[in-house]
Amino acid sequence: MQQLFVYHDITHLLKSTESSVTSGLFNPKFPHLSPVTTLLIEVSANPFPSCLNDKTSSKATNFIESLLSMKEVDLNMPLIDEESEQFRVVKYDQHDVFIAGYVMFYPCFSSFFENPVFHMENFFIRECYRSKGFGKWLFSTMALEAARMGFSSIDWYASDWNESALGFYKHMGATISDDFRVLSLAGKALEAFEDDSN
Amino acid sequence: MQQLFVYHDITHLLKSTESSVTSGLFNPKFPHLSPVTTLLIEVSANPFPSCLNDKTSSKATNFIESLLSMKEVDLNMPLIDEESEQFRVVKYDQHDVFIAGYVMFYPCFSSFFENPVFHMENFFIRECYRSKGFGKWLFSTMALEAARMGFSSIDWYASDWNESALGFYKHMGATISDDFRVLSLAGKALEAFEDDSN
Repeated sequence: MQQLFVYHDITHLLKSTESSVTSGLFNPKFPHLSPVTTLLIEVSANPFPSCLNDKTSSKATNFIESLLSMKEVDLNMPLIDEESEQFRVVKYDQHDVFIAGYVMFYPCFSSFFENPVFHMENFFIRECYRSKGFGKWLFSTMALEAARMGFSSIDWYASDWNESALGFYKHMGATISDDFRVLSLAGKALEAFEDDSN
Repeated sequence: MQQLFVYHDITHLLKSTESSVTSGLFNPKFPHLSPVTTLLIEVSANPFPSCLNDKTSSKATNFIESLLSMKEVDLNMPLIDEESEQFRVVKYDQHDVFIAGYVMFYPCFSSFFENPVFHMENFFIRECYRSKGFGKWLFSTMALEAARMGFSSIDWYASDWNESALGFYKHMGATISDDFRVLSLAGKALEAFEDDSN
């Protein structure tokens, strides 16, 4: 998530820490949030540890109980991940397994459709893993799940200047709205309503 | 909701009916959706029936237990609601009470903030009730609730061409993103992922 903010050059907005994300996802003060699904791409140059087949370990609070999918990728060139240590997956501590990317999404109501939709909150492939088919695999896994579960749509935001992302999403079949603007009311502008009421 | 689609000239996209909205909101197939809050503006030329003070009747499944607020509005001109019968509130069948507008929103996770946010799904004031302060009242009621409950932001979409709405939202303190585009994957483009997997 931190790398997503670097990519968008908005690290000044980055307030997320491990504990704030945990608190955002599982805060008992806000018990009414839809569960957020995160799909992680874990990569290893070696065969994966067998504990991966133990599906019970991946249950957690998720409404998608298990979405385990394995893929062998043939890379033309050796891949150098200079930040690999930061992204080592600790649960396989005897094995070299690293995070290559992730997607986060959650279900929500839509007045456009009879069935609910997914809102995709984050989609990110780490730089050294781009253009190797990982993004397509990750996006397709989510989209297939949405279609199978009967969701009507997936919606998300992307930055106007991010031509490579927009190109990728178009290639995946997405429609880019010509019309919609994204608005928000946050920070002092939101707090002002509380001040006015006192 | 039907009038919202007429306003946006997208009635060809309108698939919502009373039963589809009910099904979208309360479909047991999708038990993991955040509860959707709807605030309705009910208007009457006469004093409101006393049953309004019975807060237990408004509980339902909502996470905001009761957000009852009354306001007396002095209109400069008599207001003619030509479609009033369509918008009569049946629960007060002995009284002339009509719907003037509504807002629908739900809480969701955000990776930008430590606390969750509201997503505003619909905001609509019926034509004959516009420019009379109803929109400001409705929006403020929601924003005050968001602030009081500790939500970090409210976000929503608006159409680029809709200058009066954008002007209103700016006046309410909203920021309009210069940067974000709204993308979606729906219909055949989404179903294609399921076809590919067979």
